[in-house]
Parts: sequence; C-alpha cells; structure tokens
Amino acid sequence: MRRARVTGTVTATVKDPGLTGATLLLCEAAGGAELVAVDTVGAGVGDEVLVAEGSAARLPAQTSGAPVDASIIAIVDTVAQ
Amino acid sequence: MRRARVTGTVTATVKDPGLTGATLLLCEAAGGAELVAVDTVGAGVGDEVLVAEGSAARLPAQTSGAPVDASIIAIVDTVAQ
Amino acid sequence: MRRARVTGTVTATVKDPGLTGATLLLCEAAGGAELVAVDTVGAGVGDEVLVAEGSAARLPAQTSGAPVDASIIAIVDTVAQ
Amino acid sequence: MRRARVTGTVTATVKDPGLTGATLLLCEAAGGAELVAVDTVGAGVGDEVLVAEGSAARLPAQTSGAPVDASIIAIVDTVAQ
Amino acid sequence: MRRARVTGTVTATVKDPGLTGATLLLCEAAGGAELVAVDTVGAGVGDEVLVAEGSAARLPAQTSGAPVDASIIAIVDTVAQ
Repeated sequence: MRRARVTGTVTATVKDPGLTGATLLLCEAAGGAELVAVDTVGAGVGDEVLVAEGSAARLPAQTSGAPVDASIIAIVDTVAQ
Repeated sequence: MRRARVTGTVTATVKDPGLTGATLLLCEAAGGAELVAVDTVGAGVGDEVLVAEGSAARLPAQTSGAPVDASIIAIVDTVAQ
Repeated sequence: MRRARVTGTVTATVKDPGLTGATLLLCEAAGGAELVAVDTVGAGVGDEVLVAEGSAARLPAQTSGAPVDASIIAIVDTVAQ
Repeated sequence: MRRARVTGTVTATVKDPGLTGATLLLCEAAGGAELVAVDTVGAGVGDEVLVAEGSAARLPAQTSGAPVDASIIAIVDTVAQ
Repeated sequence: MRRARVTGTVTATVKDPGLTGATLLLCEAAGGAELVAVDTVGAGVGDEVLVAEGSAARLPAQTSGAPVDASIIAIVDTVAQ
C-alpha cells in the first residue's frame, strides 16, 4: 500500500454508473505523486491514509464491481520508525 | 485513478477486434506522463478526466473483454483543495 | 495503453512453452522506457503501436494463457492533437 | 518481487475489516521508494525482506480476500552477486 | 516484459510455503531498476532474460498458485535493432 495525505475532494457529474455515490479524494502519496482514490473508511482532507491499488481496490464492499483502481482502506494513527 | 487532461485522439485501422468502435484518447496525466485510454463517458479534447488502469479499465460495459488497460471513467467538474 | 515505437526483434530459444511461435518485439515507449511486447496485429520495426499491459495483454487470442504482460494491440495511423 | 528493508510499523484503528489483525510494516525498497506491506512471515524492523505486489499479495493464507496490494513473503538470508 | 540481466541469487529460509524449491534470482532491468524474479527456464547469473510481471508471473507451471509477481520466462539469444 502507499501512504498518502488526503489533500482535496473531486466531483464528477458525468461518470461510470459504478461510481455513483462514491467519494473521490485527491491524495498526495509519499514521494509526492498524486492519485485519486475512493474512500471506503470515512477519511477526510488532512488525514494520513493507506491506499490499496489494482484489483485490491475493489475488495472493500463499497467498491465491489466498480471501475476503481485505488481505494483508501485505512486511516493511519501512528508510524513508529 | 489518475487525473489527466485529454490532449488528442488516436486512430488505428489495424487493431485487436476488441477495440472496434472504441474511442482512443491521448491523455496527459498529472505529473506529465502520457497514456492512451478508451473513452467510456463521452469525454473530449480539453476535458479533465479520471483514468482507471489495470483490470479496472475493463469493468465499464464499453470495454468488457477488450485488451484495454486504461479507460476514462469520469469527467472532472471540480477539485477542491 | 502506452504509445511506443517498435525498435527491434528479440529471439529466445529457451522459453516458457506458452511463448512458442510468439513474435517478441522490442519497443521504446513514449518517455523513453524500453519494454518487450508480443505482437498480435502484424506490427514491424518502425511502426508506432499501442501496447496493452498487465492482464489485458492476454486477452488477444494469440496470447491467451501465455505468461505475457505486454502485447501490441494496435498500429497507430494518426494522432491528432 | 522487490527487495526491501523493514523500517517501521504502522497502526490504524479505522480500517477495512479485512485488515483486522494484520501487521502493517513500513518498508524502504531498493532504490529508496517507500511502501507499506502486510507481514505474512514474521518479519520485523531491520529485516531485509521480499515484497510481492499486486494480486500476488493476496495469495498467502493471511491476506486472502483482504484489500492488500503488498505482502512480505520472505526474509532474505543472503544475496550472492 | 522487461529485459534484464541476472546478477545474483537470493536465499531465504523463512518464506511463504509457495516459494519452497523456487530459485530466486536478483536481476537488473534495462534502465537500472532491481527486481527479484523466480526462475522458470533454467537461467543463471550473467544471462540476459525476459521477466514477466503481475499475474503473468504465475502462469508458468513452476509458479502456479505461489505469491510471485515476477518470473523469468525466457533467456534472450539475440536482440536485432
């Protein structure tokens, strides 16, 4: 998974029917890359999250069958190094 | 998903039968990388879109069973940061 | 998909049985990265092509069931920007 | 697979139910990229490990069905070059 | 597929049961990136090989069902450019 910071929200009226009701969040991954992920855990702007990509992104109940390649699957509490 | 700008159209006479009738759009992703994606939502040049990659790209009805690894699945209205 | 230029041919005597008869082409993708893809549309050196990657690469009839992660699925005629 | 060094641990209270009980480890891959992987072999901070990504990450028994795209599947003893 | 040079061997005592008996080879891909792949064709250090990644890596008989995301599927004889 990639660790990322939620930086914004994305709205789209014209979209695949599978995205109806999905919350699309703009994220900045560790290293600086941008991605857009579907929220499945109630994350919000400013949260540090984990993003699962690829087919893993469709295993949460909220994204099953939708054309989604990135989902937020956890909100990070702490990272101990 | 990757956020991208549609920058052009691609035509190909010789192609896999699964691509017959597909609209191939050239896109510039956030960060500058180029990719070619199948349109599934009526996007056009200049639109800001979301591109789903990998097996997610074949979940829209228009691309089911086609050898496609990138599909446009939404047209972005706004990004609030 | 990635847009790429076919730059050469690869021969391999020792290989997975699923690659028997496959044409392996060396390609330079937009941006400069190199990849080796199986031809499924009759492409040749010098052609501009589209390469599908991941599980999409095994959807053409020629690559079904083979350990292939990149296939040429179209020859580009024109790109209008 | 990517070779990586385990550099820390990640805790997350709010997460997909499929991650319940999973050990999330922060890793630095060869080349410097960061990723978070689920431990399936008893790895700890400081270990050099192999990380499997994509659908491969869900083949260990511990991650089957979970929204996971990276798992630690081996602890490296030696690399002979 | 990626073209790579086999540069070493990796040993791991603690690993997923699916890796038992697998030969893990360190490879340097064209462009310089490092990856670890399971050998399925009898490759050795110094060989130039093709590496299949993602789910393609589990299509050879030797890696079926194992948590593997990269396999060597051919030894390169020649590249004609």
